[in-house]
Amino acid sequence: MKLSELDTPVLLLDEARMLSNINKLKGILEKKSVTLRPHLKTCKSVDIAQKIKPVGPNASITVSTLKEAEYFFKGGYGDILYAISITPHKLIRLKKLQDRGAKITLILDDVDAAKLIDAAIAELHTNFPCLIEIDCDGKRAGLKADDPDLVPLGNYIHNSNGLTLAGVMTHSGGSYASRDIVEIRNTAEAEQKSITTAAIRLKEAGLPCPIVSVGSTPTATYGEMYDGVTEVRAGVYVFQDMVMQALDVCATSDIAISVLATVISHNKVGNRLLIDAGSLALSADPGKPNHLGQKHFGQVCRSRDCSPIEGVFVTSMNQEHGLISLENLSYSFDDFPIGSQLRILPNHACITAAAYDRYHVLDEGGEIQKTYDRCNGW
Amino acid sequence: MKLSELDTPVLLLDEARMLSNINKLKGILEKKSVTLRPHLKTCKSVDIAQKIKPVGPNASITVSTLKEAEYFFKGGYGDILYAISITPHKLIRLKKLQDRGAKITLILDDVDAAKLIDAAIAELHTNFPCLIEIDCDGKRAGLKADDPDLVPLGNYIHNSNGLTLAGVMTHSGGSYASRDIVEIRNTAEAEQKSITTAAIRLKEAGLPCPIVSVGSTPTATYGEMYDGVTEVRAGVYVFQDMVMQALDVCATSDIAISVLATVISHNKVGNRLLIDAGSLALSADPGKPNHLGQKHFGQVCRSRDCSPIEGVFVTSMNQEHGLISLENLSYSFDDFPIGSQLRILPNHACITAAAYDRYHVLDEGGEIQKTYDRCNGW
Repeated sequence: MKLSELDTPVLLLDEARMLSNINKLKGILEKKSVTLRPHLKTCKSVDIAQKIKPVGPNASITVSTLKEAEYFFKGGYGDILYAISITPHKLIRLKKLQDRGAKITLILDDVDAAKLIDAAIAELHTNFPCLIEIDCDGKRAGLKADDPDLVPLGNYIHNSNGLTLAGVMTHSGGSYASRDIVEIRNTAEAEQKSITTAAIRLKEAGLPCPIVSVGSTPTATYGEMYDGVTEVRAGVYVFQDMVMQALDVCATSDIAISVLATVISHNKVGNRLLIDAGSLALSADPGKPNHLGQKHFGQVCRSRDCSPIEGVFVTSMNQEHGLISLENLSYSFDDFPIGSQLRILPNHACITAAAYDRYHVLDEGGEIQKTYDRCNGW
Repeated sequence: MKLSELDTPVLLLDEARMLSNINKLKGILEKKSVTLRPHLKTCKSVDIAQKIKPVGPNASITVSTLKEAEYFFKGGYGDILYAISITPHKLIRLKKLQDRGAKITLILDDVDAAKLIDAAIAELHTNFPCLIEIDCDGKRAGLKADDPDLVPLGNYIHNSNGLTLAGVMTHSGGSYASRDIVEIRNTAEAEQKSITTAAIRLKEAGLPCPIVSVGSTPTATYGEMYDGVTEVRAGVYVFQDMVMQALDVCATSDIAISVLATVISHNKVGNRLLIDAGSLALSADPGKPNHLGQKHFGQVCRSRDCSPIEGVFVTSMNQEHGLISLENLSYSFDDFPIGSQLRILPNHACITAAAYDRYHVLDEGGEIQKTYDRCNGW
């Protein structure tokens, strides 16, 4: 099937670009002798996960929803980290996966929560391995590496019936705010230092800490020091996106997903194009400003080869309309005929992809021969 | 089913609030003797549409995707306005609906587009009624009411084989930028003036203009003057949301959808709660700042009765984490125990609802007895 035969908006996956991204990080981490536990919240697809890591009862992955856990276990992945603080109510679905043979690892960052979870697990007559979440940059969840609550939480988990202390994990969300590669390297160093500090504190208290897990695409790409770290989690690197491009984590030519859209109108008074991809098709994620400091909702590219059209971005959106300002640019409406197709590189691949129930996979000849499904929702 | 039995995040619909919203606008428009052609892009649900307008071959509705057109026609709605400029490729699916008895009305705002569409329709051996889109506020698409291209476009459509000129339509997206009710009233007046000016120009040129269609929830709510207008389109009023609340179009107690979430962590260093509803569950739509000028991603409410917790908003988000800052507020973590549920009123109901494949419908007793499905995607 040719692109011109597709109804728009539709999500395209350039498989060659994706495989290149996968192999690039694989090479980086192999050199550092650290294991990848891919975060599959980005792709939400078994077809894609298999390109990252072969299935198997010991194949380790990361997920962010119960639905992903169920879907990827069914797809053959046996060692699943559910990387969101667990609540009692969610244990039942995870217990069902355990009963079918899954190894499910939880995360926690609070003694009160651990007590609740332990009590709920007692009712289910089971046990879950559990990591303690460490906050390496103050951006989201977790205990600081030097938090006085860390060792008491470790002790509580270690001595509980329902939980087995399996280590520590952190996520350097702060790396997304870096201004250049030097800052990303510094952030990676801080991430490594934070997680190993926490691990050492637990070990010095006589507690086990076999897993020491870090992760974010920027720090995984540029991190240099993995002493004391056992695994890296990363997700968006598989597709890359305009946020990663703005961070110099990738080039626009590495971005593997795009939204195919059609030019539906020329607004001559406003000097803007309209396309049939708006905030549902692209997501309202603001991303990072472009190199000129302009806020945008995606880089506009030629449909033929996904090459970026210099300076042309989706500048505003309604639910099903994307607006592309041509102000101060050397293009005319004739360059974008009504009915012609454009491809939009998303700001945030994880969120844009979630609007679609499948990927239309481009082959080397630029045609669609297959689709890969996704497990959206919870 | 009780709320405490639901897996979170999940989309709740308070049916009593929704019916009140539906009846309120119905009453307003009946007094003005103007027909409602509801925009079903918000609810995307036949179960909900039936509360707005009974099904039937002449029941007029508005949609924004081909999938909505197909879904609502199958659900019994026969008179469908596809309110996005049409492209040649999309005609095939609409022709199939025509063949099954649907009346499908298109919109266009460009002579070049009209020529393309007319040629494509010729190949399908059919004819579509078509409205000309008018730009009443410079915010999106359409011709200005005084645009010299208006009458030539009207003439082209009227004289074409494939299109039948059926009137004019506009959408006052600019009403969302109003600062108070007086501004909304002025915007409604400008919308009415713009569309009737366009209609008069077409009629004075000897062209037919039976449909004169306006629409947006703010202007539909506060508009006073409908002389020369035949129908009103509105969608989000069915649910209302925090944008409409900030515009004084509704109260928070009118907002009929909410996302049920669970408290998953207490971040003591950052003085914030974490919930299991992030940018996928709530949408990254920035909405309008609250009454203190603070940007937020939803009003936090008690799960029991959805009453707002004064001053508490979702302040930032990751994909599956919502962060709720308690800085400068008189609440403690004890007010939000881990594992307890909260309800979040969304900024933009249309976009938040699109993350879910169904509504969990609350009855008067606050329990879930049924679900309504949605037709997401394209």
